[in-house]
Amino acid sequence: MTTKTVKYYWEDLTVGSTHELGSVTPSREQILAFAGQFDPQPFHLDEAAAQASVFGRLCASGWHTCAMAMRLMVDNFLCEAASLGSPGLGSLKWLKPVYPGDTLSLRHTILDSRAMGSRPDVGLVRTLWEMHNQHGDKVLHMEGWGMFRRRQRADAADS
Amino acid sequence: MTTKTVKYYWEDLTVGSTHELGSVTPSREQILAFAGQFDPQPFHLDEAAAQASVFGRLCASGWHTCAMAMRLMVDNFLCEAASLGSPGLGSLKWLKPVYPGDTLSLRHTILDSRAMGSRPDVGLVRTLWEMHNQHGDKVLHMEGWGMFRRRQRADAADS
Repeated sequence: MTTKTVKYYWEDLTVGSTHELGSVTPSREQILAFAGQFDPQPFHLDEAAAQASVFGRLCASGWHTCAMAMRLMVDNFLCEAASLGSPGLGSLKWLKPVYPGDTLSLRHTILDSRAMGSRPDVGLVRTLWEMHNQHGDKVLHMEGWGMFRRRQRADAADS
Repeated sequence: MTTKTVKYYWEDLTVGSTHELGSVTPSREQILAFAGQFDPQPFHLDEAAAQASVFGRLCASGWHTCAMAMRLMVDNFLCEAASLGSPGLGSLKWLKPVYPGDTLSLRHTILDSRAMGSRPDVGLVRTLWEMHNQHGDKVLHMEGWGMFRRRQRADAADS
């Protein structure tokens, strides 16, 4: 990514704020390419096998959906944030299949925020990621933690 | 994947059983390729930026680590299982950075098992996925649910 000026430090991530972070439309070729490399189950690679499966049609690997959400997150938020990565997620739900040509829109909500006791220069935020398809169905729901550099150290008064 | 004979139905997934599901060694080129497509943050793409980050060196996207775990899971377990996909994960932890050339080994443990009330032909298992690197450090911890076809329908006595 092109590194931009940092606009968002930990203090700027307000609990309750929601941002729309764009959309992505995976093609059949992209779905096949990801599945071929990382998730070569028949319902992600073969139309006939997918029709015989619970999914009914060829659909994207759930990990591909997560990776597409991450790309939107980086392009439309993290590239301007003092992000320090994530320790993980508390919940990840693949709620509906993602089919070739679906348009997936990402929404990001700040659920909670707290200082990091062990690092006075870092804060944590708990975030909700939701992806909906063009029919309004939610396909992905994730709740996780992100670490962000603070605009001002917690111990700044001591320094 | 080459579809093999199904060896594992829901009834065959014994609570407490553990399986080693092989290993993968991502190259620098593979880490850069994944990050360039899905997670273009500086510490996944640029050595100098990574050295200045909390990670200290160029490291893999956490989503790449998940995708590599999935590939091992498919190649060494799901290809012989009556798998019907997953509704999601209850927990996902990226515990340590993954660096180019690290060798990551996947272990799979069945934590819990239950019938699916709404579908007499399907059962659920709760599984633990753990990836360790060549130093014995755990880099990935996931707990999730998988759906598997039953060898025998719960309502078979009625039919």
